[in-house]
Amino acid sequence: MRVAVLVQYEGTSFNGWQVQPDKPTIQGEIEDALEKIYGERIGIMGSGRTDSGVHAFGQVAHFDVAESPIPVQNIWMTLNKHLPQSIRIVSSQPVADDFHSRFQARERSYRYEINTRFNILQRDTRWFVRYIIDQEALMELTGLIHGSHDFSSFCYAGTETENMMCNIQRADWIQLDEGGLAFYITADRFLHHMVRMLAGSMVEVARGKWTLDHFKALLENPDRQNHAVTAPASGLTLLKVTYPDSIQPNWVEGHEKFANGSKHY
Amino acid sequence: MRVAVLVQYEGTSFNGWQVQPDKPTIQGEIEDALEKIYGERIGIMGSGRTDSGVHAFGQVAHFDVAESPIPVQNIWMTLNKHLPQSIRIVSSQPVADDFHSRFQARERSYRYEINTRFNILQRDTRWFVRYIIDQEALMELTGLIHGSHDFSSFCYAGTETENMMCNIQRADWIQLDEGGLAFYITADRFLHHMVRMLAGSMVEVARGKWTLDHFKALLENPDRQNHAVTAPASGLTLLKVTYPDSIQPNWVEGHEKFANGSKHY
Repeated sequence: MRVAVLVQYEGTSFNGWQVQPDKPTIQGEIEDALEKIYGERIGIMGSGRTDSGVHAFGQVAHFDVAESPIPVQNIWMTLNKHLPQSIRIVSSQPVADDFHSRFQARERSYRYEINTRFNILQRDTRWFVRYIIDQEALMELTGLIHGSHDFSSFCYAGTETENMMCNIQRADWIQLDEGGLAFYITADRFLHHMVRMLAGSMVEVARGKWTLDHFKALLENPDRQNHAVTAPASGLTLLKVTYPDSIQPNWVEGHEKFANGSKHY
Repeated sequence: MRVAVLVQYEGTSFNGWQVQPDKPTIQGEIEDALEKIYGERIGIMGSGRTDSGVHAFGQVAHFDVAESPIPVQNIWMTLNKHLPQSIRIVSSQPVADDFHSRFQARERSYRYEINTRFNILQRDTRWFVRYIIDQEALMELTGLIHGSHDFSSFCYAGTETENMMCNIQRADWIQLDEGGLAFYITADRFLHHMVRMLAGSMVEVARGKWTLDHFKALLENPDRQNHAVTAPASGLTLLKVTYPDSIQPNWVEGHEKFANGSKHY
């Protein structure tokens, strides 16, 4: 039986999603929790890896269990009992045996947050940019990246991926509050470090270090060695992963299921 | 020479503002940092105490130094070198010898944040309310508390204060984002636990447990034993303390002073 889970995490204290020996990772913690419940090691597959320090509001993962003594829709609550507070499962749903959280994902959405005024409550979730920022320049830059482009210039040089084409469905900078700005981006796929390199490079323009033409040139002359400025991991959150309608898990989150004070997370 | 400082802190890991033996407190950490700089114990006075777990974006404190080898406007940077990352001084300014951060404060502003949808990135800064909330009821309640009232019913029963009158200048609930709401309140003074008891009691009405009349009765029949529901400390932030114009410190924050990438906090 295949189960899909919707996962939130505060990435600050983890070495990213993917299991690594002797290091705390989100995947590792969830596999440890599953082992405590089912008495055996069960591998989980995430929709994508996230780097050390990156957060998630809507990561999706799947795993297989032979038989579950716990109803599938309740597995999330039991998992939370065995997970650290910085990882919370907010929904678990049965999916088809051929559902694949990574290969069948249709769209992924990320948010990158910055602060131009220091705020201690956001020190692990927003990049504190120590420059005066031209907000209009940020808006203008988002217009350049819509649609399909080769994002080689905005990809970690050591990547093993060959296909560098990504189709950007949404790209917006939005004012959050005094000093706070967020870059929202949705695409069919992302390259390694791509959101952080786009955000970092856009800020280079907005603070007047780069010209808009310099950014444009990186986009128009794809070159992996020509890579851009990478913004810190802490500002990045994986917001949402969507699947084709026919296989989209029917996420019912805990707060919808129990609006009666139950403390399942 | 008297110095005023503007202080931010993430209160989660501290036992509140006020010095306590063998426990980490914000006041204690700042006094330790001053001792490292000036070689002697210098007491600091805050505009008010904050409870364990409460945060600050604009706490004000003052202290006296005989002679400072560091220009007063730069003391904040040196203090930050000796403080934990969860406490940051964002400005230091010279003030008159009779300036008093607590007794001369004219207005204080607080924010209380709640989430009706779980978000792990706000687990230490917003109260996760596990109920469906009537937002209009919240707005309606704020209208009741404007102006001067005896807030005995919204005061910690064990308090030593006698004067229970507070003059509310501003009280608003504002939608922050999907699931997020903030209660902003400004008054000349606050009683112990008052903001948390107002927020907690308003949520009782908004989730349908209390009637609006029950809340009204608490306000109209001040009674310290009749006290209201106290919301958790983690949702509360001391936002701002203001002084009469003639003595208001001229806060120039680090991000205004150094918009050139300098990393002083």
